[in-house]
Amino acid sequence: MTPPGGFPDTEYRARLDRAQAMMAQAGLAALLLTTEADIRYFTGFLTRFWESPTRPWFLVVPASGSPVAVIPAIGAALMAQTWVKDIRSWRAPDYDDDGVSLLAEALTERAGAHGVVGVPMGLESHLRMPLSDWHRLQARAGGLAFRDDAGILRRLRAVKSEAEIARIRAICGIAGRAFARVPEIAGAGVPLDRVFRRFQMLGLEEGADWVPYLAGGAGTGGYADVISPAGPRPLAPGDVLMLDTGMVRDGYFCDFDRNFSVGPPDAATAAAHDRLIDAVDAAAEIARPGASAADLFHAMDQLLTGGQGSAAGRLGHGLGMQLTEGLSLIPADHTRLEAGMVLTLEPGLELAPGRIMVHEENIVIRDTGADFLSPRAGRGIPVLEG
Amino acid sequence: MTPPGGFPDTEYRARLDRAQAMMAQAGLAALLLTTEADIRYFTGFLTRFWESPTRPWFLVVPASGSPVAVIPAIGAALMAQTWVKDIRSWRAPDYDDDGVSLLAEALTERAGAHGVVGVPMGLESHLRMPLSDWHRLQARAGGLAFRDDAGILRRLRAVKSEAEIARIRAICGIAGRAFARVPEIAGAGVPLDRVFRRFQMLGLEEGADWVPYLAGGAGTGGYADVISPAGPRPLAPGDVLMLDTGMVRDGYFCDFDRNFSVGPPDAATAAAHDRLIDAVDAAAEIARPGASAADLFHAMDQLLTGGQGSAAGRLGHGLGMQLTEGLSLIPADHTRLEAGMVLTLEPGLELAPGRIMVHEENIVIRDTGADFLSPRAGRGIPVLEG
Repeated sequence: MTPPGGFPDTEYRARLDRAQAMMAQAGLAALLLTTEADIRYFTGFLTRFWESPTRPWFLVVPASGSPVAVIPAIGAALMAQTWVKDIRSWRAPDYDDDGVSLLAEALTERAGAHGVVGVPMGLESHLRMPLSDWHRLQARAGGLAFRDDAGILRRLRAVKSEAEIARIRAICGIAGRAFARVPEIAGAGVPLDRVFRRFQMLGLEEGADWVPYLAGGAGTGGYADVISPAGPRPLAPGDVLMLDTGMVRDGYFCDFDRNFSVGPPDAATAAAHDRLIDAVDAAAEIARPGASAADLFHAMDQLLTGGQGSAAGRLGHGLGMQLTEGLSLIPADHTRLEAGMVLTLEPGLELAPGRIMVHEENIVIRDTGADFLSPRAGRGIPVLEG
Repeated sequence: MTPPGGFPDTEYRARLDRAQAMMAQAGLAALLLTTEADIRYFTGFLTRFWESPTRPWFLVVPASGSPVAVIPAIGAALMAQTWVKDIRSWRAPDYDDDGVSLLAEALTERAGAHGVVGVPMGLESHLRMPLSDWHRLQARAGGLAFRDDAGILRRLRAVKSEAEIARIRAICGIAGRAFARVPEIAGAGVPLDRVFRRFQMLGLEEGADWVPYLAGGAGTGGYADVISPAGPRPLAPGDVLMLDTGMVRDGYFCDFDRNFSVGPPDAATAAAHDRLIDAVDAAAEIARPGASAADLFHAMDQLLTGGQGSAAGRLGHGLGMQLTEGLSLIPADHTRLEAGMVLTLEPGLELAPGRIMVHEENIVIRDTGADFLSPRAGRGIPVLEG
């Protein structure tokens, strides 16, 4: 049975097996999961309905046996199309008891009355349920001990299966085709917010299911930041335009960007672009099992700042069911790369105060080294009509 | 100063004044906010960067004086374009201290060493930071007492200003124009997933900044559910197609749907569509200050099930900075409507087991009654090429 946009059962069974081995080691009787990516990881439950924050969703992963979904009735029919057989639902929102007693019962049943329940509590995690209900749950399931999941979800999700890698490669290809068509929609005189809208349309036309993320900027010889919404200012000759997108197909993200020069670039812009490409190459060169996240940071930073450390913070991160997930390319991250890890290489340069350039590619770690998932950009910044 | 996509300072000052009046009444020395909508409500900080779950963001709203933003350095330049002057940032992610001590200091400074800090803990809320950091914060700011925010954020955000209503009306108009163009992209033989992609493109072309939400379904005489992703099955004569979208412009959502018949509808489909329209009319008729959310539910439910209660759960909800927010049209919600509340009317019918139809419109409550923000659909289901 393959749920809409999901994988065959074997994929989820393999994930469950790996999780249960880690749970045994960590002494956990169950995992309690509440977020979209964590729940989908074990079930294949794929829907954009998570955009509504009203209803909580729960998955109980026991130390042995199959997962139990404790979810609002509105999702029961879709969950029934996954391999999860034990689905318990209530009509949400219920102001008296929004799934809490149903969840307490499922946890107690699967973890035992005094079991230890792992909940992702570390970096990048959050508990997607009201704190008041979290407190109620702890009171209601009084014998259970709730602890950190010992990083199990983070470790599991960091290493992708071939099926997952194929998904990420597919969406990278889609975004790559959209980037190749940017000259159709952008050039001197076109307002940046119009470029943003048209670029999202290109992504959809090329096959993205949706475009959860688009950021970027445009300015003379660089842009001020990479998170602001697009304004109505028209592109002008001499601008550097950057578009950075996280598109999704069948639940997996790409996350890479491209820079463009509006009209011929000046020498500084051309050189900066090529330095970013060289930095990506330097990291890709050493990206293989055994190297650390910090090693990749330093390889890029050496070329970018001569080893001074980048103000931009991190120079890349893990990627998969979320736009960003898992490791960070920063000096403090000593995670050892493993085959199957998917990450972004994202070097940045400050050309002048308030003028930056950022470049980004997506790779998967293979035993033989870096395998590019995004259609690798070369030296020579692409030029738009100026 | 108006931040990109935001409002003039006066809007945020008015919100702060109302919040501080409520905080005085509730005995709160400060509010601690962690989610996109809550932080944007007081600041105007608008970015799609929230798609990345890696970094936590914090806003401290003191009982008197101005808000303090405690945020990752990557957002400092954009926050500086808002009216918030006190911005404290760190280079995130920091594995040793991801903003916790900075936040503890800001809270202690603004709430006093033994102040009571309100955090949204009720229905529909969540704490967007790792639980482990939440525990660290409580240990670090040991004298502070963290309590529920007494529903302050929920109550504040429920009643929209004229500036907010204008935003919601604008995006409703954009989606309405996209819906009017559905005959250009859908008809017998077109796969549903292609319709989904093309519809999002129409929304962008008509002026949406992005399309965070699109759901729907298609099937003979109704659809099975409204949250599944679209599959490749081509539309066929006799299908009912439904598209339900949450598009965004300048940070505000619409949330409404339209049904279409592929080829001429049969009598049951035509009648069901008109019954949904009548249900909307019945609710709109009584939607004015003083009526309750439950009253609107019952007005619709009477027409839909003869008062048996709908299996669909709720028949509408609040709307604004989120796809769904605030009140629910369910029997248990006795919230009194107030002028300025924006909500959806969303009646549903089960035509046969596993065959439903849902219709949705958006209204704002005025002293004189319901004012439609979505271009109100009439009786007579629109027909696509069959």
